[in-house]
Amino acid sequence: MTEATARPASRRRTAATPLRVAASARARPDGPASRQDFRDWFAEAAKRTFTWVERVPLDELAGWRTDPGTGNLRHHTGGFFTVEGLEVRIPDGPVPAWSQPIINQPEIGVLGILVQEFDGILHCLMQAKVEPGNANGLQISPTVQATRSNYTGVHGGRPVPYLELFRDPGPDGPLVDVRQSEQGSAFHHKRNRNMVVEAYGDVEVHEGFRWFTLGELHQLLAEDDLVNMDARTVLSCLPFADARLARELGPPDDEFRAALFRSCDPSAGARHSLDSVLSWITEARTRTEVRVRRVPLAGLPGWHRTPERISHESGAFFDVIGVRVEAGGREVAQWSQPMIEPHGTGVVAFLTRPIDGVLHVLMHARAEAGYMDVVELAPTVQCTPDSYAHLPGSARPRFLDAVEAADPGRIRFRSVLSEEGGRFHHARNRYLIVEGDADTDVAPDDPDYRWMTVHQLVELLRHSHYLNIQARSLVACLQSLLVPGEPAPTAERKVP
Amino acid sequence: MTEATARPASRRRTAATPLRVAASARARPDGPASRQDFRDWFAEAAKRTFTWVERVPLDELAGWRTDPGTGNLRHHTGGFFTVEGLEVRIPDGPVPAWSQPIINQPEIGVLGILVQEFDGILHCLMQAKVEPGNANGLQISPTVQATRSNYTGVHGGRPVPYLELFRDPGPDGPLVDVRQSEQGSAFHHKRNRNMVVEAYGDVEVHEGFRWFTLGELHQLLAEDDLVNMDARTVLSCLPFADARLARELGPPDDEFRAALFRSCDPSAGARHSLDSVLSWITEARTRTEVRVRRVPLAGLPGWHRTPERISHESGAFFDVIGVRVEAGGREVAQWSQPMIEPHGTGVVAFLTRPIDGVLHVLMHARAEAGYMDVVELAPTVQCTPDSYAHLPGSARPRFLDAVEAADPGRIRFRSVLSEEGGRFHHARNRYLIVEGDADTDVAPDDPDYRWMTVHQLVELLRHSHYLNIQARSLVACLQSLLVPGEPAPTAERKVP
Repeated sequence: MTEATARPASRRRTAATPLRVAASARARPDGPASRQDFRDWFAEAAKRTFTWVERVPLDELAGWRTDPGTGNLRHHTGGFFTVEGLEVRIPDGPVPAWSQPIINQPEIGVLGILVQEFDGILHCLMQAKVEPGNANGLQISPTVQATRSNYTGVHGGRPVPYLELFRDPGPDGPLVDVRQSEQGSAFHHKRNRNMVVEAYGDVEVHEGFRWFTLGELHQLLAEDDLVNMDARTVLSCLPFADARLARELGPPDDEFRAALFRSCDPSAGARHSLDSVLSWITEARTRTEVRVRRVPLAGLPGWHRTPERISHESGAFFDVIGVRVEAGGREVAQWSQPMIEPHGTGVVAFLTRPIDGVLHVLMHARAEAGYMDVVELAPTVQCTPDSYAHLPGSARPRFLDAVEAADPGRIRFRSVLSEEGGRFHHARNRYLIVEGDADTDVAPDDPDYRWMTVHQLVELLRHSHYLNIQARSLVACLQSLLVPGEPAPTAERKVP
Repeated sequence: MTEATARPASRRRTAATPLRVAASARARPDGPASRQDFRDWFAEAAKRTFTWVERVPLDELAGWRTDPGTGNLRHHTGGFFTVEGLEVRIPDGPVPAWSQPIINQPEIGVLGILVQEFDGILHCLMQAKVEPGNANGLQISPTVQATRSNYTGVHGGRPVPYLELFRDPGPDGPLVDVRQSEQGSAFHHKRNRNMVVEAYGDVEVHEGFRWFTLGELHQLLAEDDLVNMDARTVLSCLPFADARLARELGPPDDEFRAALFRSCDPSAGARHSLDSVLSWITEARTRTEVRVRRVPLAGLPGWHRTPERISHESGAFFDVIGVRVEAGGREVAQWSQPMIEPHGTGVVAFLTRPIDGVLHVLMHARAEAGYMDVVELAPTVQCTPDSYAHLPGSARPRFLDAVEAADPGRIRFRSVLSEEGGRFHHARNRYLIVEGDADTDVAPDDPDYRWMTVHQLVELLRHSHYLNIQARSLVACLQSLLVPGEPAPTAERKVP
């Protein structure tokens, strides 16, 4: 029995935690029986649970009002969220000024995964959960996905199972506990508390819940639209950096994985020191002037409201639409709400490169209007290519061509994943991890990009608001590559 | 020649940086000659430089307008800062709601210390600088103290010496580069970029500037009103944590210092892991609801404007006053501005305690209305005792009695230091570092307080907005105790 698999004396986050996490990542079900077990569970949940979504005009959203003064959309209780206007000025940005609708939801929700060790391995309690905006209904979600409205009961719903374990994680405290942002292009200052808590004693597994090893979740990440955004962000915050990871996970079967192991080792070196990276972030956050002003949704320049939607005159970006939702299983809930419907499938990609044998990821210091602190670190590429179709080549985002033209053998990860289905309607992005070639480089003092190692990203993920939500999803995907994979089991799922 | 004193191949922040900082801290001038040198330089600066401050009615501040709609005070150029109203609600705080005037200055300024190694020791280039709010005129300031207005020229003044070295710190980057907050009770979201940059080549020492070792600055910290707030905050961000500090600075001459050495050693253990401390901060920032709204200064509940001042009806807190300033030397500048004039001298104190031989400091998770992120870590005690004189004992801040009743032998540091003289008029606090006794303790899960080591504070100081300005001042004072001190030289200074 190794240190990593011994039953821990303490459930605190300690030096042994990364090894316990790695042991769980190594534990991948590979027999037909365990695949069948997941398939059966997911199919059963799909039978028991449903969501039915109908578009309705914005003026007919039950419970929602258009404020006569501002045109803002708000719930009659004052709860949930509002859709307002935002006026944005980023004088040195590629587009120096614009206006847009934005979701204002200033509460901090909880995204929590409960873990427990059995058979010597950490397991994660996950939920098969429908969200109205999911293209395919059911996805794998964290144990708890609660807005403050959920636990203060403003929606009048049932109590959220397991939430108490996150509100009072016991004397050892959580393994992960950090507030992180969501899409700054759609949300004003939205943040969630990402938590991982280790359970004491017996845990009842409610209907719709199931224990997964981290390795099994990593397999499922490779499937389209299966592991939801909230699960991905919590997984990305696990402490996946340690000099001993290679011993736990190795030996590597190829050069990419060997470089990835070294990238998780804080003693293995990096192109830039962490202090130098932090100084680059300070410079970007000081230099970039982002001025935002909340303004009335009515009369927002460039945006038009019809009964069905609020859209930009160019047809680009996203629409605000209204939906009526029926969802549930044995109990049925009905509600209506506005949603954000993006135009086109986005591309979210990490370019990677070994530097002195250590895998580095090219991070972008990106300003979005809704961030708490001006700039966060984003993937190398994060855009919707359709938006650039009618523009000259010079307007294309940097590195988009390098990603799109990459030799298939250099694409280490590719999966279409959904953004949060509670606010976004059918928002999907192609998530890619691509080995860059010799041409892929930036100057060491490039103002907007830096090569960083995985252990540097893990160190920053102990703190709030350094990595954006798209980068966090890709960190979880990158960590899934630490263990060589067979294709993941295929779930029986609804097709959009 | 040791590693620490060798001329560095690189001026990057490296593993050797803490040792170079420690070597500079150890270098304390102790002969009468070097004391005389400082005295002469300071007296010369005092002769050459002056500030003359006259109170003027708020309506007669040249260049400033009272906005007819809001009553806000603003400069006619739109530059510098505005004085506005703030409505604050902290439902679970000791006072759940109040209104107050606040300074709104959303720019990020630069506070920078230029360092250079000569005679094998890092030296800091400091400036003798007058600020209109200083009770004694001249204080020791960083190399650069620049608002964005300074370098965009909105004030029409001379260029700021050495500023270019901080705007372009060269390929090795700064040794320190982090944005930190200022007083959240007086400023709305005010932050400055704290920087330390190591100079290349010859540096011309302009009139009013002088090189100091860190040890000399530490000696001068023990004098009242001599090292200004901006200098203290930059000094606090130096990387003062390393397992080898004791070897560089030792052997310790008493138990307190031995425990302080261990406190700077990241391998020496701590009562709470850093992850546990970060989780506590996440909890405090999630639990604490701070709702602030900028409102007109006119008609602010509880506040009254006379021609001379805006004051609270209780006579407590602070006044907004107007001053006309003449300052300079060979060139004379004249301007008028509003200032904040606090009532009474505050107490700012660290209670310390060895835990398993490692010195710990009791930190307080404190909400202030103007913080970017709800709560920052404050000293154990931070208050103005006069404000509590007429209140029952139960209203007294926790640990204030422990600090005020401390046996003089347990007071390791005591100095009256000034807050920033550009915005505050005669704002002074007694800064204290006190050895707690056996009665001084908190439960490990106290929601508001945690015992932390110096190396944990140093780690958090790599990031923005964890330690408040008062705590940062005290960190600099605590680091000054690493080297046993003789009394510092006495400067010839104006008396208030």
